[in-house]
Amino acid sequence: MTDSVPSFPTSLGMSTTSTISLLGKDLGTELMGQVGFSEMAFWLVTQQRPTPGQVRVFDACLLALADHGFTPTAIAARMTYLSAPDSLQGALAAGLLGGGSRFLGVTEDCGQFLDREIRALETLPESDGDWDALAREIVTRERARKAIIPGLGHPVHKQEDPRTPALVQIAKEEGTYGPHLQLFLAIGRVHPDILGRRLVLNGAGVVGAALADLDLPVELLRGFALLARTAGLLGQIAEERRRPMAMDAYLLIENNAVFVEPENGGSDVRH
Amino acid sequence: MTDSVPSFPTSLGMSTTSTISLLGKDLGTELMGQVGFSEMAFWLVTQQRPTPGQVRVFDACLLALADHGFTPTAIAARMTYLSAPDSLQGALAAGLLGGGSRFLGVTEDCGQFLDREIRALETLPESDGDWDALAREIVTRERARKAIIPGLGHPVHKQEDPRTPALVQIAKEEGTYGPHLQLFLAIGRVHPDILGRRLVLNGAGVVGAALADLDLPVELLRGFALLARTAGLLGQIAEERRRPMAMDAYLLIENNAVFVEPENGGSDVRH
Amino acid sequence: MTDSVPSFPTSLGMSTTSTISLLGKDLGTELMGQVGFSEMAFWLVTQQRPTPGQVRVFDACLLALADHGFTPTAIAARMTYLSAPDSLQGALAAGLLGGGSRFLGVTEDCGQFLDREIRALETLPESDGDWDALAREIVTRERARKAIIPGLGHPVHKQEDPRTPALVQIAKEEGTYGPHLQLFLAIGRVHPDILGRRLVLNGAGVVGAALADLDLPVELLRGFALLARTAGLLGQIAEERRRPMAMDAYLLIENNAVFVEPENGGSDVRH
Amino acid sequence: MTDSVPSFPTSLGMSTTSTISLLGKDLGTELMGQVGFSEMAFWLVTQQRPTPGQVRVFDACLLALADHGFTPTAIAARMTYLSAPDSLQGALAAGLLGGGSRFLGVTEDCGQFLDREIRALETLPESDGDWDALAREIVTRERARKAIIPGLGHPVHKQEDPRTPALVQIAKEEGTYGPHLQLFLAIGRVHPDILGRRLVLNGAGVVGAALADLDLPVELLRGFALLARTAGLLGQIAEERRRPMAMDAYLLIENNAVFVEPENGGSDVRH
Repeated sequence: MTDSVPSFPTSLGMSTTSTISLLGKDLGTELMGQVGFSEMAFWLVTQQRPTPGQVRVFDACLLALADHGFTPTAIAARMTYLSAPDSLQGALAAGLLGGGSRFLGVTEDCGQFLDREIRALETLPESDGDWDALAREIVTRERARKAIIPGLGHPVHKQEDPRTPALVQIAKEEGTYGPHLQLFLAIGRVHPDILGRRLVLNGAGVVGAALADLDLPVELLRGFALLARTAGLLGQIAEERRRPMAMDAYLLIENNAVFVEPENGGSDVRH
Repeated sequence: MTDSVPSFPTSLGMSTTSTISLLGKDLGTELMGQVGFSEMAFWLVTQQRPTPGQVRVFDACLLALADHGFTPTAIAARMTYLSAPDSLQGALAAGLLGGGSRFLGVTEDCGQFLDREIRALETLPESDGDWDALAREIVTRERARKAIIPGLGHPVHKQEDPRTPALVQIAKEEGTYGPHLQLFLAIGRVHPDILGRRLVLNGAGVVGAALADLDLPVELLRGFALLARTAGLLGQIAEERRRPMAMDAYLLIENNAVFVEPENGGSDVRH
Repeated sequence: MTDSVPSFPTSLGMSTTSTISLLGKDLGTELMGQVGFSEMAFWLVTQQRPTPGQVRVFDACLLALADHGFTPTAIAARMTYLSAPDSLQGALAAGLLGGGSRFLGVTEDCGQFLDREIRALETLPESDGDWDALAREIVTRERARKAIIPGLGHPVHKQEDPRTPALVQIAKEEGTYGPHLQLFLAIGRVHPDILGRRLVLNGAGVVGAALADLDLPVELLRGFALLARTAGLLGQIAEERRRPMAMDAYLLIENNAVFVEPENGGSDVRH
Repeated sequence: MTDSVPSFPTSLGMSTTSTISLLGKDLGTELMGQVGFSEMAFWLVTQQRPTPGQVRVFDACLLALADHGFTPTAIAARMTYLSAPDSLQGALAAGLLGGGSRFLGVTEDCGQFLDREIRALETLPESDGDWDALAREIVTRERARKAIIPGLGHPVHKQEDPRTPALVQIAKEEGTYGPHLQLFLAIGRVHPDILGRRLVLNGAGVVGAALADLDLPVELLRGFALLARTAGLLGQIAEERRRPMAMDAYLLIENNAVFVEPENGGSDVRH
């Protein structure tokens, strides 16, 4: 048994009998009413208050990822709400647990991919032509190792993902159009020649690039996708309350189940 | 087996080959860059776009609940991140799963409690005196049934919860100071006489009242507490990466574990 | 800051440099190879080692709840595995989060309902006739308050739930057929006269009664349903790997989404 | 919109009005009372009924992983139960979400590591000496690439992990001592010479080897660790109800929180 307790340092929330502070700021007098929610989320993660322009880009990123209709994560949340309507937090958590490598992971993968390339440079390219040369090198190299470039291609939006030009435009307006977006767009320009077909720059990827250009930690980009999705899932659950569909969807699946014999009859003892 | 598929109506996210919309608005041209993230969250739940004043009150509510340091939910998230750093979504979900009846539930309980009282009225009180009379009746009735009034009292902030006056002030400034807040404040004025001691109007409760005054669905108020907490948990996880404490906290607990014999020796067969 | 650390008493797992124990028993020499897994689960919760007969009844209960095909919880787990195949624990957790009031809660609700009735008795009925008289009283009273009796009725098994006679038989064979099962069967006999229609005694309900007759804590019966479901969900995930269906199910739903205008057009500012 | 519904094949749970089956077996007459719970879990995943000997080894593996006292996952579950006691499923899910790469992942990592080596062989070694030669090659190669060999070393059990000899003994008794365990033990014999220090063969690793020798799918070994942990977490939650410690642990941490200024004062606008 130890007889001394370590202290646990933190820069986040602190309370005394009469005060509550976040990041060293008084919650009631310095934050509430003066700081927006997404601004606070940005600040909590980075410990640095973003500029209004950064907040506008950040908000646009969050909107781009908030909801895409009946995705697997939305379905998981609605099924869980159907089964356990007493536990809203469980339905929300179930939805967020789908925020892994496949459906919500592209944002983080793309941001990290671009960031690794940029950190490996001694000096940044200065012209679009220089960015294109770099992008050509990267795409050629990735193709040689048969790797997939995160952020390229979309199952539905085969001509253009409408989020991509929108976000690039906003980042340019706010002065946060930086190396990650520049490299991403260059990849968009050069890859058809190298890969032999044109893939769209998808919305999840462009968000990863834009968030990385905000100097957000690239290891946590998935976290912002999850924050965005939290709002979308609340919308899904609110709609499930107003206009339920989970029971119908579940019955549609269950009623179309067909039994298939287990591979070895299911009953043979092994070996 | 059925041969026809039901359709699944939704007003949320929809995609076509070239468009993405939310709530019938084009994501790229009508929402991104023009709508803030918390504004969108409000809109997704209610299907109605909030006014700037409503957004300011809503943001203040979310800030009030975002983070309170090393709460059980923050500890759960950090412990999970320690065990499974590859799954950020798991750590976040673990933290949100504590958003139940005890620690995050007061917001919803208080909003629903006030809402039930107000819906039972034929006409709303017009003066503070009338609100006080109503509050006196309610507190007396609840005391008689030995029920706890949600939103009263706080383990730490025994004199005043600094979030309460801040949020009331902001709601007044934005014209969203409505019957839920009025009744809550009246309860704050009259209860000491009836209960024989003065309890603070706590921050979680005032947020419930303020959110209900924004006409948000009272059955989903917990959802907004969870949205707020998502930002706080991302801050906790980001800090855990920068300055880890979960391993120390875990070892502090484990090193001070003492074995206690199971009640019946643990080995007796029952009956 | 405190300068002394509380100790944390526990009767569960303990380790020293060379030993690991559970419930005071040496894991390697007294438990592994000698105690079955479900036996251990029972023991961990109750701190009392069950008899072989109790284990057989307990196992039968767990089997009764393990898997029911494409339930909402199975769908949620598969959708989550589809989205985040790197996080098996997330898919499993998502499935378990549906273990709430509606689909998995009947076991706990029924066990608790029966237990409350039995604890309120001064002496237990001795004959089936006496149990029937008690059951008649209870069903009449519940009907008067328009309450639902947990464990009665099933959406699919309208004639008989095959789990019910199977479990009653096993409990009788093992000598664990006690007051909870007796009262449950009596309710099954008397309710048609009182309610005017015959409802089956469903499997989730009979499991609740049987588990309560094993003296398991009725507040934790849901936990055993969740343990059972963990095995079923692993089966679902293993099948999803062998023969995927989640992508098809998701696309079936998404492809049949139809847009409905938000109630107020979605764009009007409120108030 | 599609006008035909795909069918969803499954070999798991199926229901008709009067029957319930699992894996093609009638639940009430062919499974309940005759098949143990862990036996069923094994069968559900592999579609093959295990032998009694395989069940004994499987149970020993599950016991080895069920509970280790106040681990991060146990703490996360207890903290969540403290915050949301109304949602047992949430507390359980929170605990399982820690079953990721670091604390519960060794079982899967070790099983997969050994399996890859064994699958790469054309013929299996026949003597301990041959296994040692193979192990020497593997350890030398891994050391050269500075890779960690899963299953080697333990922070507490520095002399011996008592689960390792116990499980090897049981596997030998039941005839399931196969190539994975053989290679694992050979690694245990040869590594000190190559690495220059002796590390224990830890319990999580030996379980991975033993499960792989049962022909369980190595991609799902983590799932069995999670099943085992489900029982342990139920024990933790039951103990938290009998003898609460989560509130004390939380307050111990919170009371020892110290504020540290954010790195840049927290208020400076970036850039």
